[in-house]
Amino acid sequence: MHALLERLFPICRSITGEGVRQTLSILREYLPALRVHEVPSGTPALDWTVPAEWTIRDAWVKNAAGERVIDFQQHNLHILQYSTPVHGWFSRQELHDHLFSLPEQPELIPYRTSYYQANWGFCLSHQHRETLQDDYYEVCIDSTLDEQGSLTYGELVLPGACEEEVLLSCHCCHPSLANDNLSGLVVAVFLARELARQPRRYTYRFVFGPGTIGSIVWLSRHRDTVGLIRHGLVLTLLGGPGRFTYKQSRRGAAEVDRAVAVVLRETGAPHTVRPWLPYGYDERQYCSPGFNLPVGCLSRTPFGEFAEYHTSADNLEFVRPEQLTESLGLVMNICTALEHNRTYRNLSPYGEPQLGRRGLYKGVGGGQEGADWQMALLWLLNLSDGTHNLLDVAEKAALPFPLLHRAAVALEGAGLLQPIS
Amino acid sequence: MHALLERLFPICRSITGEGVRQTLSILREYLPALRVHEVPSGTPALDWTVPAEWTIRDAWVKNAAGERVIDFQQHNLHILQYSTPVHGWFSRQELHDHLFSLPEQPELIPYRTSYYQANWGFCLSHQHRETLQDDYYEVCIDSTLDEQGSLTYGELVLPGACEEEVLLSCHCCHPSLANDNLSGLVVAVFLARELARQPRRYTYRFVFGPGTIGSIVWLSRHRDTVGLIRHGLVLTLLGGPGRFTYKQSRRGAAEVDRAVAVVLRETGAPHTVRPWLPYGYDERQYCSPGFNLPVGCLSRTPFGEFAEYHTSADNLEFVRPEQLTESLGLVMNICTALEHNRTYRNLSPYGEPQLGRRGLYKGVGGGQEGADWQMALLWLLNLSDGTHNLLDVAEKAALPFPLLHRAAVALEGAGLLQPIS
Amino acid sequence: MHALLERLFPICRSITGEGVRQTLSILREYLPALRVHEVPSGTPALDWTVPAEWTIRDAWVKNAAGERVIDFQQHNLHILQYSTPVHGWFSRQELHDHLFSLPEQPELIPYRTSYYQANWGFCLSHQHRETLQDDYYEVCIDSTLDEQGSLTYGELVLPGACEEEVLLSCHCCHPSLANDNLSGLVVAVFLARELARQPRRYTYRFVFGPGTIGSIVWLSRHRDTVGLIRHGLVLTLLGGPGRFTYKQSRRGAAEVDRAVAVVLRETGAPHTVRPWLPYGYDERQYCSPGFNLPVGCLSRTPFGEFAEYHTSADNLEFVRPEQLTESLGLVMNICTALEHNRTYRNLSPYGEPQLGRRGLYKGVGGGQEGADWQMALLWLLNLSDGTHNLLDVAEKAALPFPLLHRAAVALEGAGLLQPIS
Repeated sequence: MHALLERLFPICRSITGEGVRQTLSILREYLPALRVHEVPSGTPALDWTVPAEWTIRDAWVKNAAGERVIDFQQHNLHILQYSTPVHGWFSRQELHDHLFSLPEQPELIPYRTSYYQANWGFCLSHQHRETLQDDYYEVCIDSTLDEQGSLTYGELVLPGACEEEVLLSCHCCHPSLANDNLSGLVVAVFLARELARQPRRYTYRFVFGPGTIGSIVWLSRHRDTVGLIRHGLVLTLLGGPGRFTYKQSRRGAAEVDRAVAVVLRETGAPHTVRPWLPYGYDERQYCSPGFNLPVGCLSRTPFGEFAEYHTSADNLEFVRPEQLTESLGLVMNICTALEHNRTYRNLSPYGEPQLGRRGLYKGVGGGQEGADWQMALLWLLNLSDGTHNLLDVAEKAALPFPLLHRAAVALEGAGLLQPIS
Repeated sequence: MHALLERLFPICRSITGEGVRQTLSILREYLPALRVHEVPSGTPALDWTVPAEWTIRDAWVKNAAGERVIDFQQHNLHILQYSTPVHGWFSRQELHDHLFSLPEQPELIPYRTSYYQANWGFCLSHQHRETLQDDYYEVCIDSTLDEQGSLTYGELVLPGACEEEVLLSCHCCHPSLANDNLSGLVVAVFLARELARQPRRYTYRFVFGPGTIGSIVWLSRHRDTVGLIRHGLVLTLLGGPGRFTYKQSRRGAAEVDRAVAVVLRETGAPHTVRPWLPYGYDERQYCSPGFNLPVGCLSRTPFGEFAEYHTSADNLEFVRPEQLTESLGLVMNICTALEHNRTYRNLSPYGEPQLGRRGLYKGVGGGQEGADWQMALLWLLNLSDGTHNLLDVAEKAALPFPLLHRAAVALEGAGLLQPIS
Repeated sequence: MHALLERLFPICRSITGEGVRQTLSILREYLPALRVHEVPSGTPALDWTVPAEWTIRDAWVKNAAGERVIDFQQHNLHILQYSTPVHGWFSRQELHDHLFSLPEQPELIPYRTSYYQANWGFCLSHQHRETLQDDYYEVCIDSTLDEQGSLTYGELVLPGACEEEVLLSCHCCHPSLANDNLSGLVVAVFLARELARQPRRYTYRFVFGPGTIGSIVWLSRHRDTVGLIRHGLVLTLLGGPGRFTYKQSRRGAAEVDRAVAVVLRETGAPHTVRPWLPYGYDERQYCSPGFNLPVGCLSRTPFGEFAEYHTSADNLEFVRPEQLTESLGLVMNICTALEHNRTYRNLSPYGEPQLGRRGLYKGVGGGQEGADWQMALLWLLNLSDGTHNLLDVAEKAALPFPLLHRAAVALEGAGLLQPIS
């Protein structure tokens, strides 16, 4: 995954433009079935309108000696996203009104945008800014805001046995920031490849689009079919350090909320489950009250809670391959839990069935695994009255979900359980 | 408020009689619309009967030397309330059977009553009692229990936009005790004056009556209309020190219970919310199971939990002006929360509406107020699905109720929210 | 109770056979109405089949010198329960494959069974086992597994005013183990004698049968009538030390679950209430999902949590008379709470009724009992709206159940409460 992330890192993405197209084009090498959609600027989308397409070709500030003292070619973050074109001389004070830096993190370049308010500007380290002491500077931003352009997003559908869907959504609008959100993109790509190789109960839909406006455009084009979404996750910030953090969907106790909690519990590692909050990533749109989809947000340390967030320090060193791998494993386990979470009915509900003559009594050998196996069988038989699914059993029994799934399969094989949903 | 309290303090009130009439007469100087009701002794009221009217003119104990060793003229608390008339000589032991003092608080005169059991007696400090060592004493209580008398209570109605009511009830039967309950009376009077100057959604009804029998009489005369009471508070012990204490209504999660909890939380000061208990003040009657009105009880340190309770130490020094002022502010904020607690519907519920083009995005400037303002807007939009009122939002979002109200007004002004109740 | 327990201790019980018959025959001396049922081997019972009847006459291991080095006559626990007959010479290794001991408790004989898997074996202390160093041993087990035999259980019904039942169930299949479960048996016997002397609202049904197969057989023969069981308890491990432990029924908040919790709370002693778990004693069968009866399990320290469990140390010294007595008192209090747990309606629900003129106000004298009595009256009047039974009141008011019962009787006597169920 890290190799893919390294290829994507240098591209200057924004909410529209060539950067997103290049990114999706690379993803299609991994996911040939990925479809790329172009939505014309000016198209209404729910309460919003698709913005003009932004192209940035070059941008610099030169001092009186004609030296480039800020140069977009040196770092994608130097340009304020959606800067309008400009060329001319500015006094030091005028220039500084268009500069963004972080006095408390003087070595880092911040990431800033001005999508919906016309402006221009440069981002740079505070150290760098303090060297700009000339009286006048020449500024050039060679950009275009094209009202005839379009917004680009990618979508991949992996059909399953039923038409009910699991939605996996990642924002792909940030330029050279590795954790936010190339990490989410590459985990989603490898998850899709893994799922594509397996039988699937659910249909899986992956959406790669720009933050906010991307999910709004996508929702506006799927208003009639979002009812098929039974579970969903926004994937973001999955490559940095820190514990896994899950933010529940607006529903709070949706199946996906409970599945994530059970799978996180089974990691045995510290993690956090937080209640719904109408601030964050694209779950804000999926969980707006008109849609109220069961979509949560999975990350490691959340946005704004690590020092490298939205700075040049969110780079290729910050995202570690083993953290990506661990994240992919977790998301895969969540999908497996959703796939396997069925409700069973005990076909021999009067008294306990005699497990011994069916070879199920202490059939797996001694030790704690054996004891847990017995308890898994007993809990399943006891709770399979048609009102408890495997997640219910996992929560009540405090047993690992995969063990319960194996036990349910064994009991189904012995004719003692029957799946009813 | 303290000046009014000082005027009321010297009056010898009881559950009937001139003291209550004088008190209500003074209140009418502040609240000309206050109506005073007289209910004849012997009138049936629910399971009770209005008692005879008690008049106390004088009461004393003289020693053999003819000196007044206990003198009602010295302190209203010296007389056991509802003492029957008596005049004669009693042995020391006979006298002591009719004396009430507090051995553990030897300097304080206790407050005692015997409304429904015929008796006579004197209350005095334990130090004082121990000086009474003569063999015989002359006792005189010049009182009347008039079966042709009446019970007096006051009622003030401030009509609102709707006929649904907020009930505010204070007992006014205690003689010279400042915190219990002149504090409640004066806070209620100034609250009424404040509310009278404002537009009101609800109709406000203030009841000033004697404890227990007053609320029973009032309920017996309003059985058919108590259903209009949507919220209610018994106001008592609001002038002493100590944290605010709210006792929930029998319903436990009535709107008033939740409003008080949210407003108390916003004070940032230590406070206590206690569950319903069928013991206390007139909320016992309002919350009897046949009525089960949403009426809680608001006080500072509750009865029986401060040393001055029901003694001569509950005096004008014990009640401090700033504590009355703080209590008035709190009750006013509770009324405001009830007035403003509406349920809204988001008129743009599909995705987040674009706040920027409506001037609402970061429209209030930076800092935490700005951040809270943005969150208030987002929470309101997210939860306004017709099932959450502002208190629900305040609880879930942990944001101040007044901020949420201002944000709701702004969103309504922008055409994004519509009140539906 | 300890005397009865001492008579029962030497008998070698198993899930079938003479030991159970002898035990029930002794119980009939105490409970003449006890009926003993014989169910033929091979009879189908729910998912199970009644096993062959096991008779053990003698069992020994002799060394080369002809000395009995293991002798069933010395201790009932020496024989693996349901050992098949065997006679012959075995090498040391062959013998050791059929020996069971506890290396970590080297002085104790374990209790082991092999009901449903044909096997033979001996149980002995680990010290004892280590003395068996001869090369060959003669083994003899003189047992019978009779397919024409039967399973024996006892049942006692104490009819009550209504046909709804309280089920009390004890397993009686363990040989010389005092706490597990002669303690349960003797407590049940003395409880039945006590209940037989009293008027009873409920019908009480006592079942004394072998663990698992006994309750399965009983359920199979009462499928149509188990719906009459409104409350039930499995009684076990009631003679050892340790705090009382109650395991809730599968329903979790059944009336019996709440009654036990309230009664345990009133003991003032440390105790434990645990949630349902589909492992344990015969509650597993009663609470299987097809039946889902409100049956919990009451014990002192639970199985597997004390060192003497299922060893020769669970003997007559381990069970103490005062612990049996305390257990009997607790079970009796639980039955009394179930008997007295009625729902009342306040016949004077508008305002508080005037208790004084009915002699109920401070009618019981001062002190905490007096205060609690007043609060009991007020809580009952306040909550008796037809939706709260006495257990609800006990939980909310945190008052002792017997006090609330007495207060309810007093209020009923005064015409203020009426039982409605």
